[in-house]
Amino acid sequence: MNPEGKSERMRHSAAHVMAQAVQLLFPEAKFSIGPAIENGFYYDFDLPRPLIPEDLTTIEHKMKEIINANLPFVREEMSKEAARHLFAAQPYKLELIDELPDATVTIYRQGSFTDLCRGPHVASTGEIKAFKLTHMAGAYWRGDEKKPMLQRIYGVAFDSQVELEDYLSRQAEAAKRDHRKLGKELDLFSIHEEIGPGLICWHPKGALIRQIIEDFWRAEHIKRDYSIVYTPHIAKLDLWKTSGHWDFYRDYLYSPMEVEGQQYIIKPMNCLGHILIFKSRLRSYRDLPLRYAELGTVYRYERTGVLYGLARVRGFTQDDAHIFCRPDQLEEEVIGVVKLAQFMMSTFGFTDYEVLLSTRPEKYAGTIQMWQQATESLKHVLQKLELSYKLDPGEGVFYGPKIDIKLKDALGHAWQGPTIQVDFNLPERFNVCYIGDDGLEHNVIMIHRTVLGSMERFLACLTEHYGGAFPVWLSPVQAIIIPIADRHIDYARQIGSELKQESIRTEVDDRSERMNLKIREAQLQKIPYMLIVGDKEVASSGVSLRLRDGEDVGLEALSQVKVRIKTAIQAKS
Amino acid sequence: MNPEGKSERMRHSAAHVMAQAVQLLFPEAKFSIGPAIENGFYYDFDLPRPLIPEDLTTIEHKMKEIINANLPFVREEMSKEAARHLFAAQPYKLELIDELPDATVTIYRQGSFTDLCRGPHVASTGEIKAFKLTHMAGAYWRGDEKKPMLQRIYGVAFDSQVELEDYLSRQAEAAKRDHRKLGKELDLFSIHEEIGPGLICWHPKGALIRQIIEDFWRAEHIKRDYSIVYTPHIAKLDLWKTSGHWDFYRDYLYSPMEVEGQQYIIKPMNCLGHILIFKSRLRSYRDLPLRYAELGTVYRYERTGVLYGLARVRGFTQDDAHIFCRPDQLEEEVIGVVKLAQFMMSTFGFTDYEVLLSTRPEKYAGTIQMWQQATESLKHVLQKLELSYKLDPGEGVFYGPKIDIKLKDALGHAWQGPTIQVDFNLPERFNVCYIGDDGLEHNVIMIHRTVLGSMERFLACLTEHYGGAFPVWLSPVQAIIIPIADRHIDYARQIGSELKQESIRTEVDDRSERMNLKIREAQLQKIPYMLIVGDKEVASSGVSLRLRDGEDVGLEALSQVKVRIKTAIQAKS
Repeated sequence: MNPEGKSERMRHSAAHVMAQAVQLLFPEAKFSIGPAIENGFYYDFDLPRPLIPEDLTTIEHKMKEIINANLPFVREEMSKEAARHLFAAQPYKLELIDELPDATVTIYRQGSFTDLCRGPHVASTGEIKAFKLTHMAGAYWRGDEKKPMLQRIYGVAFDSQVELEDYLSRQAEAAKRDHRKLGKELDLFSIHEEIGPGLICWHPKGALIRQIIEDFWRAEHIKRDYSIVYTPHIAKLDLWKTSGHWDFYRDYLYSPMEVEGQQYIIKPMNCLGHILIFKSRLRSYRDLPLRYAELGTVYRYERTGVLYGLARVRGFTQDDAHIFCRPDQLEEEVIGVVKLAQFMMSTFGFTDYEVLLSTRPEKYAGTIQMWQQATESLKHVLQKLELSYKLDPGEGVFYGPKIDIKLKDALGHAWQGPTIQVDFNLPERFNVCYIGDDGLEHNVIMIHRTVLGSMERFLACLTEHYGGAFPVWLSPVQAIIIPIADRHIDYARQIGSELKQESIRTEVDDRSERMNLKIREAQLQKIPYMLIVGDKEVASSGVSLRLRDGEDVGLEALSQVKVRIKTAIQAKS
Repeated sequence: MNPEGKSERMRHSAAHVMAQAVQLLFPEAKFSIGPAIENGFYYDFDLPRPLIPEDLTTIEHKMKEIINANLPFVREEMSKEAARHLFAAQPYKLELIDELPDATVTIYRQGSFTDLCRGPHVASTGEIKAFKLTHMAGAYWRGDEKKPMLQRIYGVAFDSQVELEDYLSRQAEAAKRDHRKLGKELDLFSIHEEIGPGLICWHPKGALIRQIIEDFWRAEHIKRDYSIVYTPHIAKLDLWKTSGHWDFYRDYLYSPMEVEGQQYIIKPMNCLGHILIFKSRLRSYRDLPLRYAELGTVYRYERTGVLYGLARVRGFTQDDAHIFCRPDQLEEEVIGVVKLAQFMMSTFGFTDYEVLLSTRPEKYAGTIQMWQQATESLKHVLQKLELSYKLDPGEGVFYGPKIDIKLKDALGHAWQGPTIQVDFNLPERFNVCYIGDDGLEHNVIMIHRTVLGSMERFLACLTEHYGGAFPVWLSPVQAIIIPIADRHIDYARQIGSELKQESIRTEVDDRSERMNLKIREAQLQKIPYMLIVGDKEVASSGVSLRLRDGEDVGLEALSQVKVRIKTAIQAKS
């Protein structure tokens, strides 16, 4: 954000207008600071009473009057001494004045309001075209919990009403789709203070979605000649020293634990186990490539402050694989991975994505020459596949460059998705070799890759992409039968077991509640098919079908409904 | 083992006979000790040169002469002083004499040999009916690595030749079936010093078997209204203090690791995550029972010395589940679990098993009354199911009594299998409640259970039970096509892809090796179906079928082979 930019100037001015409105409404108010932020502004006030939501409406009204009056913003320079007189009743301003380095300070005035401010501002309040106060929050003066708690009011401001409305509706949609909110409503997962931050408990419905994804993932990998393996979650610290993780990655590692005088750490990556499996036999050039895949749960330290639902966690299950190949196989293997990633993304409904090529970071292992060679290979593959990409300088892993793919969800938000990393370094450190057709030992090249990223982040991304209305094949409950009255329960159960026999995940809502409530709840649960049964449906051996988007399909034969649902499952749509 | 027992006396006497033979062959030999052990005996010698395997045959011959001479064992008491003279050339014996508390010692003589010995012995060497020297090993004097390394010879001895032969053939069979040996030969798993003892890397073929078992396990659980969940591998130490694990189970816990000033441990059990999922919503009596199942990998400290292949490890994946139920549902739920366990055991080919009821251990949580109530419930269930059981006093878990089922494998060896534990204690500690039909809160009862035990131990048990010849549905490779000459490779590949299309796991052995070698290798790999193709088979569009037990089925149409294999897979036989 450029504070001198046009929108930022306008947003900063809006903060002053809000302060003026507050001063008019609360003459005793003390003012601290009020900057522009992304899309808007805030101001922190010390007020004689706590604000209530209705106050925001009153302040908004007052702000509109000030804007309509089109008051000019007037800049003025004065000595610190004069400023101290001017702000004599404003202790926070006095504290700020004392800290300013120069002998003179600047103030801005509009109408009755004067603020200590470096500026710049728009010419007059009329330039604030569209704004809205969004919410309030407590905020310590200077962010210090030992200092007074102030009341912060947040607002957003745009150059036109259309932009404002567009922003607000996108925000509302994003809030509705927030995977943390939907995760609770749809009973998908939970995070418990007792277990620890960033550690996920997958509830039955979330776990079911994960299970379906994992089964599909495994089947597609086996088709492509990957082998599934399992490796332990802990390993001796020394192994991570040999690998370089201890040197290059220590900030993300958990502290060691001790067993019989040996130090172990919980694994941050799955690669080392795969390397040891590879090395457990002599491998010939004819055996390559070998592709080991593991749904491997890894643990990495992330500060509590950056943790975010399922999207940023401390323990996550990577859909990981390591390909051990000869140099002459590298490009073909990378192409195979990119194609698999594309297949996965399109299956899960992501058609829009961005490709990044990340190069050598500041802390790296291996030689510059290795890095260049690997980076060139990746570039060559992307060119071959005619994929446009951006360079992401310095964002490679310590052992090699990588291709990252970011998925765009339905709201245009980008999510870290597949990653493909070339590694010349670990094979050297661990002497990972094959016997060439020349009878000599050669180092393999390793490819580290995921095609979904992690099960946690991918579920977050899927949830927000679909707003919780998962494609039918992923929906924890695919159909719900809603009997209108108690006398229809038997028929409902009979239909329920018929659908279950077709492997359709079905529930019967046989509670003694009103039909409309049951429908509303089923809709909130985003259940794709609601089968309502009453006298008419029993008589005709059919059901009245409603879809979760509200569409009322009407009476349909059960056989037809079965075909409809099974077709949707099959199509993964 | 009772040292006064008849067989033990005979085995101890055999040790003396061996010592006499060694003295005759190596007059400079120094003798340490030679006790009876299970099924046999050993003796530790200090010899002028390292023994070679041929020495065992020579010693055996000499022993037979001594036995045929039927020399009497003669007991004699003497003063320590006299004994010191007698064993003046035997430094180990002198050391032993010095440590004996009494003024007199006993010696035993047979023929030319005299040993310091408390006895008792058989009357004469002729009572040793059947023996065999089995192997040698180094052994430090007094087990102390700072003392001299002696040469230990092991033997077995029985009261009849038939018993000896029976024992030896069972031993040979057990050695052939040893899962550690087969695990390597069949490339199922490995354990790496670099990762740590007791931590398993599952190789592609072992992981494939595990995956099939896990998929089957999950499907059978979903059929029985279990829900799959996933929970993290680490949790705050405080949680394990609340649960009582820290107090009652600390010896098995890994040392804590620290993150942001909080201590975490790697989980030894899956129960706590399941409890928190249960507690994440209000539960009504109508919601119960809830059954949460997880293939949860747990870590427990076991001393290096007791670790054993896959059978005793430090990290293992339990096929775990926790049932949360009302008191009136307890017995029905336990019955359901026992029946599921029986179904699983019979599916995997275990028809012989033993049921144990384990009661309150020394260190326990909860009240005696709770323990009695829970133990009575388990007894009642076992009676209802007409299952005979043994009591295993004091072997319950700290939170409650349990039913353990031990599987008997094909050689009669017993393996820890399913376990069912009733828990009134954790629900109290964690206030795990449901709202009863009286509108009040009541504690649930928890059942902790596995039906296979752990994936690691179960694979060990399966491997030894089947001697690596897994049932077809579990075989990593189900069929191998062996072309007789290079000109049959195309046909072999064509058949291979036909079988793969039928979801039969198939390999084509297209190496330029002799057919007999390929067949031998396939047999060693215990591949159920070998499809040999040559001119005759190509001409008749068939294959020559061989089974892994050596049976030569002969020419069969491919369609027939497909049906045969698919029938075997379906039947899980």
